[in-house]
Amino acid sequence: MVYDLLILGGGPGGYTAAERAGNAGLKIALFEKDTLGGVCLNEGCIPTKTMLNSAKIYNHANNSEIFAVTSADVSFNQAQVVKRKNKVVKILVGGVKAKMKNSGVEVIKADASLHGKEGALFRVDACNETYLGKNLLIATGSTPTIPPISGLKEGLESGFVVTNKEILDLEEIPERLTVIGGGVIGLEMASYFQTIGSRVTVIEMQDHIAGDTDSQIRKMLQDIYTKKGIKFILEAKVTKVGDGYIRYESTDVSAEIEADIVLLSVGRRPVIEGYGLDSLGVEVEGGAIKTDAQCRTNIPRVYAAGDVNGRWMLAHAASREAEVAVNTILGKEDEMTYNNCPGVIYTSPEVAYVGATTAELDLEGRPYKMIDIPFSYSGRYMAETNREQSLCKLIVDEVDHTLVGCHLLGPYVSEIIITAGIMIERKMTLTEIKQQIFPHPTVAEIIREGIFLLQG
Amino acid sequence: MVYDLLILGGGPGGYTAAERAGNAGLKIALFEKDTLGGVCLNEGCIPTKTMLNSAKIYNHANNSEIFAVTSADVSFNQAQVVKRKNKVVKILVGGVKAKMKNSGVEVIKADASLHGKEGALFRVDACNETYLGKNLLIATGSTPTIPPISGLKEGLESGFVVTNKEILDLEEIPERLTVIGGGVIGLEMASYFQTIGSRVTVIEMQDHIAGDTDSQIRKMLQDIYTKKGIKFILEAKVTKVGDGYIRYESTDVSAEIEADIVLLSVGRRPVIEGYGLDSLGVEVEGGAIKTDAQCRTNIPRVYAAGDVNGRWMLAHAASREAEVAVNTILGKEDEMTYNNCPGVIYTSPEVAYVGATTAELDLEGRPYKMIDIPFSYSGRYMAETNREQSLCKLIVDEVDHTLVGCHLLGPYVSEIIITAGIMIERKMTLTEIKQQIFPHPTVAEIIREGIFLLQG
Repeated sequence: MVYDLLILGGGPGGYTAAERAGNAGLKIALFEKDTLGGVCLNEGCIPTKTMLNSAKIYNHANNSEIFAVTSADVSFNQAQVVKRKNKVVKILVGGVKAKMKNSGVEVIKADASLHGKEGALFRVDACNETYLGKNLLIATGSTPTIPPISGLKEGLESGFVVTNKEILDLEEIPERLTVIGGGVIGLEMASYFQTIGSRVTVIEMQDHIAGDTDSQIRKMLQDIYTKKGIKFILEAKVTKVGDGYIRYESTDVSAEIEADIVLLSVGRRPVIEGYGLDSLGVEVEGGAIKTDAQCRTNIPRVYAAGDVNGRWMLAHAASREAEVAVNTILGKEDEMTYNNCPGVIYTSPEVAYVGATTAELDLEGRPYKMIDIPFSYSGRYMAETNREQSLCKLIVDEVDHTLVGCHLLGPYVSEIIITAGIMIERKMTLTEIKQQIFPHPTVAEIIREGIFLLQG
Repeated sequence: MVYDLLILGGGPGGYTAAERAGNAGLKIALFEKDTLGGVCLNEGCIPTKTMLNSAKIYNHANNSEIFAVTSADVSFNQAQVVKRKNKVVKILVGGVKAKMKNSGVEVIKADASLHGKEGALFRVDACNETYLGKNLLIATGSTPTIPPISGLKEGLESGFVVTNKEILDLEEIPERLTVIGGGVIGLEMASYFQTIGSRVTVIEMQDHIAGDTDSQIRKMLQDIYTKKGIKFILEAKVTKVGDGYIRYESTDVSAEIEADIVLLSVGRRPVIEGYGLDSLGVEVEGGAIKTDAQCRTNIPRVYAAGDVNGRWMLAHAASREAEVAVNTILGKEDEMTYNNCPGVIYTSPEVAYVGATTAELDLEGRPYKMIDIPFSYSGRYMAETNREQSLCKLIVDEVDHTLVGCHLLGPYVSEIIITAGIMIERKMTLTEIKQQIFPHPTVAEIIREGIFLLQG
């Protein structure tokens, strides 16, 4: 059987490519050994947001005296949260399945392996069948990094240590949770369990949490969660996982922390082994498949999208990369640009950003103007909050007066950041942004307010 | 004393004009007899959103079993809500005052009246002083329409009937609230009091609620609130206000409804009398000051912004009109366009829209393509809601393939609609919208999803 496109992996990269290409009339086979939807749908974005939503409601029920609402005996049923999470995931996986069907995509639920080429066609074997394709998209995703820590393997086996996957199925709230790694996944889970009652400690190797997020915002976020009760141990390296404890070392301390559960969230690495990538000679760099702006690898007609390219490792980057790859296959001009790719941390308050940070621009030596203001300029923010910490940081190119970066900490920012993403992608000048009517009262207005305060 | 600009009215139109013009170095006098901030800040947008936020939290606390959160004895303290609302308003009024000061604006807290011209200058009198200005901006706002209903005057005097202003200070929750007028104000207040325990009836003269909102969305909104317990009486005219009741008549019914409080919200009319508008010969049309795209009236150097022009009667339209007027005064090219002006109804779920409706395009005979989908295509929506009714309606120009209308019903839409507003204003094509990376998972993604479903 000859296909126009063979796709390895059924996550956001794989299924989006299949949908777009299928709707364009291509004949597609998509291989996925687990459930459609990938990490994002099954053990990432969607389950965590389902859970964080319940935590947010719980927090509101507990802490709304200021808004004149009081409740007694507020209870949180973690087992039921897990159950609802599974239900939501199941419905959405069903949605992806239906999309595949509607787009005429053949989904093969099996381990698949590459076996080089037969003539001009790529060969994939699965379930003792051979599939030949004119084009190939590798969207095999990523897997949690497991660092060489003494006792970690045993910890993972016993269930004392869990990854982003297993933690989503904890039916009991751990009294003491230790999170190794203060990146997005670590922070969202720390935030969740802290809200629902765990005592949480976060251990991070760097001197700050939240990775490359704007330096001011990551400090504020740490400050907010420290006040809520999370303990942060920075510049510390975990050296041992023992029975009910972990040991860490920093410059002047070597100590043990007891915990009921340890979450390991020190990053993810692309899946480039175990499926015959070598048979095609696809170029790998730094453990990831190397791609260009059209998501092409070094081998003609072999594309890669999503976490496997080791770039943004975010579902929405994967989907867009998949679209670029499909458009390239279809002969339509398209290009992957990352400067309008937003990032979100679904803590409470949320963090969202798009475009350059001042640190990046400083490094490039590119001149810019910057303003940072609290959200208290927004009437809706004042109406709906108790004026917790918030920040809107806008960065403008000093030469062409366009917005080049937007970094937000506060409510609703996950839904607002796309506004700044469009401004950046469309290279809107400050004058054009000022001419845009923002609805009042909204939190989004803070962007317009900031632009006026920056330029007058 | 000679000023560059005299401004009548300290609402969003007046204070925004003062701020922008003051920052540009103009010498400004702003006249406001009441509190700075106008209807929006003192008795409109901000107080209602403060109250609706408390109602939303109350509703969550009561109805979150589905999210695994339960509370006992949830209580709502209406008097405290009013107190907090007053505090929020006070802080924000203080913010406007500070802005006026920082922009060097002279604020005259007094009744002001126009007295034609003295030579080339406009004359305003207030507190026995005379102010002369090179330019004049009329931003006197609007006032509730009081229709000629028998007994209404007495009802208003006794407090049995209230307007949008007085209802914000009710410290007790009325057992039975009747709302005359199913527009935005009526619906937001009906939603609020229904949520906190009142039995609410809405009487509307038209055969639908929510005015010119998309016809499908207004039907859905009525359906949602009917299920929540609000009684809607459409195509009915209130003919009498009695002692503890009102009488209405429709085609086949004449009936009385008993109520504890009646909210009169049948619209607002521009304030064009009582301050000497005649002395300048400013043209009035249909009870509103007539303006052009630069917010100029028929009299050179006399401008009008905000509700007094009888157009959108929304705070954010007023602010933008004020900016256009100031830019025109400053000799900068600018123009007021309304096709990117969003509207929001802060019910639960929210309604938000921008651009054309299908009804408008049908009337114009302009060819378009349309899609309407529920939000269940959004993973975040599925994660955070119980899949109540929702709608994303996108309207695309059939000729140039740009987005021309977006109509949303669902969570977060107040903060999302600006995204569509920018797409419309920047005349983004479907191809350009598809190239934009939306963060995942967000509800905003529904727009991108809709575009793909519309065009493939």
